[in-house]
Amino acid sequence: MGLLQLLALVSLLIQATAFTSQEPARPGPTAQPIASPSPTPTPLPPPTVKIDAYRTAAARIIGAAVTSDRAYTKLAHLTDHIGHRLSGSKSLERAIEWAISEMKRDGLENVRGEKVMVPHWVRGEESLEMLRPAPGKLTMLGLGNSIGTSAEGITAEAVVVRDFGELEKLGEGARGKIVVYNAPYTNYGATVLYRLQGASRAARYGAVGALVRSITPVSLQTPHTGAMQYDPAQPKIPVAAITIEAAELLQRMNDRGDHPKLRLKMEAKFLPDAESANVIAELKGSEKPDEIVLISGHYDSWDVGQGAHDDGGSCIVVWEAARLLKELGLRPRRTIRVVLYTNEENGLRGGNAYRDTHREELAKHVLAIEADSGVYRPEGFGLVATAPLQVRANLQEIAKLLSGIGADRIAASGGGADIGPIMREGVIGASLDVEGSHYFDIHHTAADTLDKVNPQDLALCVATVAVMAYVVADI
Amino acid sequence: MGLLQLLALVSLLIQATAFTSQEPARPGPTAQPIASPSPTPTPLPPPTVKIDAYRTAAARIIGAAVTSDRAYTKLAHLTDHIGHRLSGSKSLERAIEWAISEMKRDGLENVRGEKVMVPHWVRGEESLEMLRPAPGKLTMLGLGNSIGTSAEGITAEAVVVRDFGELEKLGEGARGKIVVYNAPYTNYGATVLYRLQGASRAARYGAVGALVRSITPVSLQTPHTGAMQYDPAQPKIPVAAITIEAAELLQRMNDRGDHPKLRLKMEAKFLPDAESANVIAELKGSEKPDEIVLISGHYDSWDVGQGAHDDGGSCIVVWEAARLLKELGLRPRRTIRVVLYTNEENGLRGGNAYRDTHREELAKHVLAIEADSGVYRPEGFGLVATAPLQVRANLQEIAKLLSGIGADRIAASGGGADIGPIMREGVIGASLDVEGSHYFDIHHTAADTLDKVNPQDLALCVATVAVMAYVVADI
Repeated sequence: MGLLQLLALVSLLIQATAFTSQEPARPGPTAQPIASPSPTPTPLPPPTVKIDAYRTAAARIIGAAVTSDRAYTKLAHLTDHIGHRLSGSKSLERAIEWAISEMKRDGLENVRGEKVMVPHWVRGEESLEMLRPAPGKLTMLGLGNSIGTSAEGITAEAVVVRDFGELEKLGEGARGKIVVYNAPYTNYGATVLYRLQGASRAARYGAVGALVRSITPVSLQTPHTGAMQYDPAQPKIPVAAITIEAAELLQRMNDRGDHPKLRLKMEAKFLPDAESANVIAELKGSEKPDEIVLISGHYDSWDVGQGAHDDGGSCIVVWEAARLLKELGLRPRRTIRVVLYTNEENGLRGGNAYRDTHREELAKHVLAIEADSGVYRPEGFGLVATAPLQVRANLQEIAKLLSGIGADRIAASGGGADIGPIMREGVIGASLDVEGSHYFDIHHTAADTLDKVNPQDLALCVATVAVMAYVVADI
Repeated sequence: MGLLQLLALVSLLIQATAFTSQEPARPGPTAQPIASPSPTPTPLPPPTVKIDAYRTAAARIIGAAVTSDRAYTKLAHLTDHIGHRLSGSKSLERAIEWAISEMKRDGLENVRGEKVMVPHWVRGEESLEMLRPAPGKLTMLGLGNSIGTSAEGITAEAVVVRDFGELEKLGEGARGKIVVYNAPYTNYGATVLYRLQGASRAARYGAVGALVRSITPVSLQTPHTGAMQYDPAQPKIPVAAITIEAAELLQRMNDRGDHPKLRLKMEAKFLPDAESANVIAELKGSEKPDEIVLISGHYDSWDVGQGAHDDGGSCIVVWEAARLLKELGLRPRRTIRVVLYTNEENGLRGGNAYRDTHREELAKHVLAIEADSGVYRPEGFGLVATAPLQVRANLQEIAKLLSGIGADRIAASGGGADIGPIMREGVIGASLDVEGSHYFDIHHTAADTLDKVNPQDLALCVATVAVMAYVVADI
C-alpha cells in the first residue's frame, strides 16, 4: 500500500462521511484510512440473493484452497527467485513475464500484459552519518521519489521536532538545518503525513534536508521506506527515513542541547520512464462474458525485502482464486478478471492506465476487489461506504458462506489505490480485509519476506476471494 | 550476558541439581540456564533476621530511587555519548575513565580501576552475498572470536541443517561447503549452542565456513552477534550470524534443491591484548568494613548498538544503588562494593582478575550480586541453588521489603558469569532477576539502545538492589 492508495482511501472516507450521515463532513482527513470494523449505521434492506445454491461450491472452493500448496509455492518463486519489484526494475519485468507465462499454463484466458509507462526512480548508494557528538553511522532508507544529494552529501546540524506544530513554532530556526521528524506512530493514516509532506514543509523554512522517523509501531533498528511528495511551491530537498532508535537518539541529543551534526548522502534520482505492464487474466463468463468481477492486487513493490505481504501475496491470492475455480470447473455466468497492477507504490500509473484502457467497459464492472493489506488471516471485505444498500445487504448475505473460516465481515468502508480511478468512474469497490496487527511492523522494509507469510492464512485468503468472486459473478 | 556466563550458570545448575535433590545429576546441561521461578522444594527454616527495623530505610530508598532521574541520565551519557564498549576499544576505556571520575564526584570511596589485560578482537569489514540463485546481499554479523577470511572471501555452496542431528547425518556432505544452522529459537541456553559450537562441529566434516541463525525469538532482518568458541581439535573456520529471514530463505532454497552459492568476507581478527580495568567503588562499612556485600555488572558490551540493556543499564543500577545510599546517609555496618567488570562478553578476564586480586578477602564476601539480564521491571533475585537454607530463608525475609514494588521473589537458582569465579571459591552468589520476555529480542544487536530502557523500570532496579544490599550489609 502506498501514497496514492492512502489518498484514495482518505478521499473515499470523506465521501463516505458525506453519504452515510446527515452531519457535515469533518474537516481533517487524518483518521485511520484502513477499513474500520464499525457496522453501517443505516438499517439494510433484506438481501435479494439466495445463497443456498452456492453452499456446495463454497465448500469445494474452501476445501480445495486449504489443501493446496500452489499459492505458497507461487509466492515462494516470486519472492525467493525474483525478489522485490520496484517500477522500472528488471525484476518487476521478470515477474511480469513469469506471471503471463504461468497464467497461460494454468489455463486462464485472455492472458496478457497491457503496456504502461512507469516512473523509474532509483535509490543508488545512500548513507547517514553522525559527525558529532557521537560519531558513527545511522541506519536509514531514502524515501521514494526523493532527490539525491551532491556527491559530498549534505552536512548540517539536525533540529528535531515531534510534530508539524513544533516545526511551525521553530519556523526560521530550521534554516540551513536537517529537520528530523520524530513523530511517534499513532496510526498509519495520521503518521504517514510526515513521510509524505515532511520534506516540503521543512523546505518552506529553509531546511536543507529532512529525516522522518519510520512509520511503524515497532523497531529493531528497522527503517521503512515509502513514497514522499514534493510541494511544487517549495524547493526540493532530500529526505530519508530513519529508525525509531535513531529518531529517539537525535531527540535526546536535541533536548540536551548537543546540537548533533549529520552528513546525509543519497544518489537517488529518476531515470527516464520505463516500459512496464498490468498483467491481466480471465475466467470468461458462461452467460454474460461482458460483465466483469475484477479481483486485483499490485505487483510492484519497494526495492527492499521481497514485497511478500505488500503486495506479492495478494497478487498470488487473486491469481490463485481464478485458477482454483478453473481447476474445479466452476465457471460463473459473468467473467472474473484478475489484474496485477504495475506501479502502485510510486505513481499509480497501472491503476490509471486500467481505467483509461477499459473505459468503455467500466459500466459492465459489477464489482472491483483489491487486496493490499497483506495476506494475513482474512476477516472479510471492506465495501466502499457509498455502495447502494442493496449491494451491501447482498454481499453480507454472500459472505455468510465464509463464516466457517471467519471471513464473513463486510466492513463499513473499503476500496483500494489501484481501483480508485475506476471507483471514481462509478465502479463499486471493495478491499480484502485481513487481520492487521502486524502489517505495519514490516511494511516497506527489508523484513517483508516470505517467512512472515503463514501458508494457512494465504490459503484462506485465496478461498475468501474465490468464494466471493465466484458467487458475485454467478448469482 | 555472554558465553562464559552461560557456562557458569550451566555449571551452577548442575551443582544445584546435585545439591537440592537426591537424584543423580542429569546428563546434558542443555536446559534453560536462566534462573527459573520454580520454588525451592526443600522447606526453609524460619528466618533469623528481623526486618521491621528496616522498613523506614527501605521506604526512603524506594521513594528516592523512583523520584530520581540520575540513573537514566547516567545511562544516557554512557549510551549516547560513549556508545558500545567492546574489550580493547577506545570507547570502553573512555567509559571506564568517565565512571571513575563520576564515582569520585558522587562521593563514593576507594574508587579505582584495577588493571586487567583483555583480548582485543576486532570485526573489521564484513559481508555476505548470495551469488545464486537470487543474487544480492544478506544481512549478517560476524561472531565474536571468529577468524576472518582472505580478502577474496570464501565462495562456496551452502548446505542448511536444522540441528546438529542433521549435520551428523550429512557428515562428509558438508566438505567444502558453508554449513548454515537454521535452528529455531527454543530458549537461549539450548539454542546458543549453535553459536558456540557450530563452526567447529561443521569444520570436523570439512566445512569451509559456518552461518548461524541468530539466537532470538523474533526478527526484523535483525542479526545478533555473540561469542563463539573453537574446539582446538578442529580447523578454525569463519562463522557469522545471519537473520531469521536469511536462514529461512536459505532453508527453502536448500529444500528445493536450488544449491545456493554464497560469498562470505570477514576481516575479523585478534590484535594484541589491550589494557583495561575493573572499576571499583565502595560505601565503606561503619562497623565491619572488611566484610563485603558485592553488587556488580559488566561494563563491556558487543560492538553494535549501545549495550544499554546488556549490560550498561545494570552497571548504572549497581553504581546508583551505592550513590543513593550515600546520598541518603544510609551507611551500613558492612562495606558495599560496586564492581563494573571488564571483558565479560568475550573473555571473562575481569571476573577472573577480581578473584585473583581479591583472593585474600573472598572469605569476607557476605554476598555477591550480579545484574546481567537487562534492566526491565525487577522481580527479585535468583539465589544460587547451593546457598545454605538459612541464607535463603533470610533473603526471602529481607525481600519482603520489596513486595510493594513486586520485586520480592527469591528464585531457586541464580548467579552470574563474572561472579562465577568467586562463587567457585565459596562466595554466595545471586542475580538481579527482571521481567525477561523481550531481552533476547535485542540481545547483542544494534537495537540494544536506550529507547528500549524504561526509566521507571531502571529506577525500580536501583531501588531493588539498594534495599537488598543495604539490609544484607547492615543486618
